[in-house]
Amino acid sequence: MAANSEANSDGGDQDKEYVGFATLPNQVHRKSVKKGFDFTLMVAGESGLGKSTLVNSLFLTDLYKDRKLLNAEERITQTVEITKHTVDIEEKGVKLKLTIVDTPGFGDAVNNTECWKSVADYIDQQFEQYFRDESGLNRKNIQDNRVHCCLYFISPFGHGLRPLDVEFMKALHEKVNIVPVLAKADTLTPGEVKKKKIKIREEIEQYGIKIYQFPDCDSDEDEDFKQQDHELKESIPFAVIGSNTVVEAKGKRVRGRLYPWGIVEVENPAHCDFVKLRNMLVRTHMQDLKDVTRETHYENYRAQCIQSMTRMVVKERNRNKLTRESGTDFPIPVVPGVAETETEKLIREKDEEVRHADHELESHHDHEHDSAHNFDHHEHSDRQPSPERHSDHKGDEAL
Amino acid sequence: MAANSEANSDGGDQDKEYVGFATLPNQVHRKSVKKGFDFTLMVAGESGLGKSTLVNSLFLTDLYKDRKLLNAEERITQTVEITKHTVDIEEKGVKLKLTIVDTPGFGDAVNNTECWKSVADYIDQQFEQYFRDESGLNRKNIQDNRVHCCLYFISPFGHGLRPLDVEFMKALHEKVNIVPVLAKADTLTPGEVKKKKIKIREEIEQYGIKIYQFPDCDSDEDEDFKQQDHELKESIPFAVIGSNTVVEAKGKRVRGRLYPWGIVEVENPAHCDFVKLRNMLVRTHMQDLKDVTRETHYENYRAQCIQSMTRMVVKERNRNKLTRESGTDFPIPVVPGVAETETEKLIREKDEEVRHADHELESHHDHEHDSAHNFDHHEHSDRQPSPERHSDHKGDEAL
Repeated sequence: MAANSEANSDGGDQDKEYVGFATLPNQVHRKSVKKGFDFTLMVAGESGLGKSTLVNSLFLTDLYKDRKLLNAEERITQTVEITKHTVDIEEKGVKLKLTIVDTPGFGDAVNNTECWKSVADYIDQQFEQYFRDESGLNRKNIQDNRVHCCLYFISPFGHGLRPLDVEFMKALHEKVNIVPVLAKADTLTPGEVKKKKIKIREEIEQYGIKIYQFPDCDSDEDEDFKQQDHELKESIPFAVIGSNTVVEAKGKRVRGRLYPWGIVEVENPAHCDFVKLRNMLVRTHMQDLKDVTRETHYENYRAQCIQSMTRMVVKERNRNKLTRESGTDFPIPVVPGVAETETEKLIREKDEEVRHADHELESHHDHEHDSAHNFDHHEHSDRQPSPERHSDHKGDEAL
Repeated sequence: MAANSEANSDGGDQDKEYVGFATLPNQVHRKSVKKGFDFTLMVAGESGLGKSTLVNSLFLTDLYKDRKLLNAEERITQTVEITKHTVDIEEKGVKLKLTIVDTPGFGDAVNNTECWKSVADYIDQQFEQYFRDESGLNRKNIQDNRVHCCLYFISPFGHGLRPLDVEFMKALHEKVNIVPVLAKADTLTPGEVKKKKIKIREEIEQYGIKIYQFPDCDSDEDEDFKQQDHELKESIPFAVIGSNTVVEAKGKRVRGRLYPWGIVEVENPAHCDFVKLRNMLVRTHMQDLKDVTRETHYENYRAQCIQSMTRMVVKERNRNKLTRESGTDFPIPVVPGVAETETEKLIREKDEEVRHADHELESHHDHEHDSAHNFDHHEHSDRQPSPERHSDHKGDEAL
């Protein structure tokens, strides 16, 4: 180790023994600002639960200027149509390309069987596109449309979760970070909110729904941060109230709803969890939502995709009864005929994982039937495929 | 657009109309600190030019405790052996895994023909390993050993660049960020340093050597930053002096070299560019060196690799005269028999680019011959393949 060295240059603000790589996070910070950010948020749930209003409230922007509302007759047979709105917003020099993926009309029809399917397909399509792009020859300027978070709106009128909610979340929880919100919370008293939250959290647990998990606090975080984190976890599902109108409350102009019995203030934490949700979604966990999407959901999709492709190629090769010369040295395990043994070993391992998960899910499924009386109605539960089974099934089809 | 809303919660430190995504760079900053950094630096050049001493001076650490020096006889036939040293260092809570790749003995032998080859192979091997890893099924915990920067040491005794310097840098400039340094600058007067730098910059230009380019300043940078950036570009090749010993100069203890005629202070900008080099390498451009490695050098390697693989597969398929059913919908273009047309289109385009580059390089090459009298000796110039040609050749071999 070197002895002390007085830096007699470089501004004189250096410590002794200071190399300077402590600036690395600042270099990353600087680059990220230059590059700009993007975030894709999906909102899902019955229409009329205030999805659009909440999104506008969250980002202080009007994403739905040209929205056309359908009448009841149109909505009865309406299919779930996915729409995308993109806005470029800037704040203190930080640029954000915000994309809102809306699933209008969800749950509107009389028969909502498999209404989650088009949403699941949409998410998969974005993964597939990204997979193609990142496997392609030219990877510059790849447009990343992967969905980073799905705000799932739960009706305040249900006794906990409705079967459709369970079905929807279970069909999507392996594909996207689900954040459940209790919509239109101004119809519930504080006591009702509290009870409903506990019920919903219990049901989420009971049906094995994997919602977005806030990352664990590091032991070196300060107490304030830990307290905030604890409160956040206790707030699930966030009880929210949205408003596009500004009203006057106690001499201040606030976003709110003017009732004859008083004013509901959207950003008042005594009235609802709007501020908590916004803090989580935007100010503290936005980057984590992106990272989990990239590192977990996308990686799962990609692994399943490679597995079914490899199976297909292996099967075709067997059919063609090709006798290949050995010894070609090919660098990628994905390409058949080469590192096949290694790939197949991995696939076997992955298959076992899937079987294991399936087994666990079946236990859950049985459990679900036992407690079906919790549901308002439960007409599709038998047809409800678990996500693992769903993808596994897809893999078989590919063969 | 929403009207003003007074945030009556959330600490009260919020602006009006403040959503909060301006914290995104801080979220990235925070995550990067948690994850830690890594950096791989290669040093190359004749032995005796102070490579190890400079690295120790840069990172205030002793990377070469166990080094064994070879005697002259051993060095004559010595092959270029690559060694790797890794240290975990921490500064102000920022962790850095620093890897130094050393090429000891380089240029030591009497016949140094193709002595750059093992270095080029080493860099390619790291790319290949990363390519395998990022194409594999499980991409968690990939170890990234790609070389982010190569400090190339130029002897202060040459009249500008030596033929070996030209050969080495041309063989590597498409694979790694080369930063040339003028070694042991305490043997040169300030006037000599200035002249030598100009000469070397001219020769770098003349021989078409692509050294690491500092990114252009944005127009919104402040004047100070622009001035610094300009000085940096004018400093190439950085004239450096290393020292592991601490001496007393003007009552201060400094890293330096004690001569009968005075004290050379390593960190005195009037004496050499050590501080400039350290600032660039560590404090301002370390992240950019990593980004260029990832986005340019690695992507070039990957594209060439995919091209030659695809050619190989297409050729094999033709030989096997397989008739494939059409209509299989396979998501990745890399996999043969599928998005083949798109891939082949891309390859054709890339081929044309390569041909174009080849053509340009041939002009350079001719030019090089014209000016061969600039060299001290020039015995290998005819055998010197350009990097493009080299890789193209590799592709043909694969077929």
